[in-house]
Amino acid sequence: MEKPYVVGMDMGGTNTVFGIVDARGNVVSKSAIKTGTHTDVNLYINDVYTELIKLIDAVGGVSKIKGIGVGAPNGNYYTGNIELAPNLPWKGIIPFAKLMSEKFGIPAALTNDANAAAVGEMTYGAALGMKNFIMITLGTGVGSGIVIDGKVVYGHDGFAGELGHVTVVKNGRKCGCGRLGCLETYASASGVARTAREILETTKKDSLLRNIPIDDITSKDVFDAAVDGDVVAKEIFQFTGEILGESFSNFVPFSAPEAIVLFGGLAKAGDMILNPIIESMEKNQLDLWKGKVKVIFSDLKEADAAVLGASALAWEL
Amino acid sequence: MEKPYVVGMDMGGTNTVFGIVDARGNVVSKSAIKTGTHTDVNLYINDVYTELIKLIDAVGGVSKIKGIGVGAPNGNYYTGNIELAPNLPWKGIIPFAKLMSEKFGIPAALTNDANAAAVGEMTYGAALGMKNFIMITLGTGVGSGIVIDGKVVYGHDGFAGELGHVTVVKNGRKCGCGRLGCLETYASASGVARTAREILETTKKDSLLRNIPIDDITSKDVFDAAVDGDVVAKEIFQFTGEILGESFSNFVPFSAPEAIVLFGGLAKAGDMILNPIIESMEKNQLDLWKGKVKVIFSDLKEADAAVLGASALAWEL
Repeated sequence: MEKPYVVGMDMGGTNTVFGIVDARGNVVSKSAIKTGTHTDVNLYINDVYTELIKLIDAVGGVSKIKGIGVGAPNGNYYTGNIELAPNLPWKGIIPFAKLMSEKFGIPAALTNDANAAAVGEMTYGAALGMKNFIMITLGTGVGSGIVIDGKVVYGHDGFAGELGHVTVVKNGRKCGCGRLGCLETYASASGVARTAREILETTKKDSLLRNIPIDDITSKDVFDAAVDGDVVAKEIFQFTGEILGESFSNFVPFSAPEAIVLFGGLAKAGDMILNPIIESMEKNQLDLWKGKVKVIFSDLKEADAAVLGASALAWEL
Repeated sequence: MEKPYVVGMDMGGTNTVFGIVDARGNVVSKSAIKTGTHTDVNLYINDVYTELIKLIDAVGGVSKIKGIGVGAPNGNYYTGNIELAPNLPWKGIIPFAKLMSEKFGIPAALTNDANAAAVGEMTYGAALGMKNFIMITLGTGVGSGIVIDGKVVYGHDGFAGELGHVTVVKNGRKCGCGRLGCLETYASASGVARTAREILETTKKDSLLRNIPIDDITSKDVFDAAVDGDVVAKEIFQFTGEILGESFSNFVPFSAPEAIVLFGGLAKAGDMILNPIIESMEKNQLDLWKGKVKVIFSDLKEADAAVLGASALAWEL
């Protein structure tokens, strides 16, 4: 193959990770820089270039690279722009794919991180061979990537697949988006921490979590406590799973997927979260789909998944 | 054109309407038989044949017909089967497209009525030229057809697009599907009648609707009363529109459509239903989509729309 590699780049609010990926989904090499410290996007791209070109040169230079795939918050696949991203240091509309492509002299494509994860799962992971599935990323926020007939759904404007902002509790928790009761306010890492605080503050139940200052509790603390058999921590995962399962039963009538694939930190809770999800989804599912829709975890190595997902975009360039 | 016509067939629980349609979307001729009186599907097809072959012969015989498109409850596009339709006289799984194709010696395709309506709207109607829209049919039930990148979404099993059964009120009204709070229990014709009964039974408000025995009130009565300025009737449309608008704001994050197209009896309520829909959708909409998603009415002639929609399927055969 003349161009045997692609670059995958995962841009988060704090860190940016990039790597060289081969056609089998091996991350050949990997590096990272800080995102948040760059208030000027051009200086950010210069710093990406300085690090990334070393990796590229090590595999034979830009002539060996088919393209660069970028997963970025508020990334628009159609335009290649990052638009109004609240968690990035640069504001407004940034023609990021164009800037990268010009800097490196290689084609570049961009989408949001959850869509990138869906492409990665379909290209190298648990959804290999699936034509219809929904990817749900349970991280700092809740993201989604919807695949129909083997293609990611981008919609009329390039932003389709924001299932983290479907209302799941009417007049529920305040969301960062300004609305109330979004799935993200319950099922993200910070949603889990909020649930913990609510239970600890409104009940007298004994819990290992009471050893931690209440405002410092993280979803990782809840996970650790649950592993140690803490009843409150298990109740938190049960509650979170129920809300996710109900939501899934409302997503299924839209695209009738073969599976819902879960990715991100919360997926580590394994059966503690999967069992209530499946139970609640099946209970709320329309008869037509009872027992028919799988809920599975991503099988991409977590440290590499975001880079792999973004890289998968570049094979289509 | 060698085969200048298609057949469109709209199968309802009570009546079946079929017609000959040309490439411009003109219904050249039309006829109907009863559905519900046929307990044997083969006898039903015989009766369809007797009537339909007259229309076909009048345009030059089966050699002039490209195919037959059927819109049927619980119709599966992939298999051509009607599966477990609660409102049809024949039970189980019926290979309907195959039976029709064998009877007439012409290819036949089948989908559910709302998907057929979406294809019709895209081929001849308000969604002409649109690649991403959601069709919502507000009739006896609430159906939907989702179009992404110019194609109807059928999903993994052929049944995608059942948005009438998305939960809109937790532990809400009992639905025919056995679940609680489905959109259909509020926004269908019978949902509107239920809302009327609830308001009349739980308040003392003056209303023209009190002149009708409460169990006989239909959505048509509510419409007539609203046209006459009845405050309760207007309140009913306001409530129905608000629920629809909230639901739409939760559908948009899935596929980011250009428009939501409304079809069916309730659409006749015009601005009385459209204004609260838009107001409530915009209020609940994620900032990203505020002011960007149109809500419009179908512009297909109502008497012909179902036949046109079904016929549009047949051009792809």
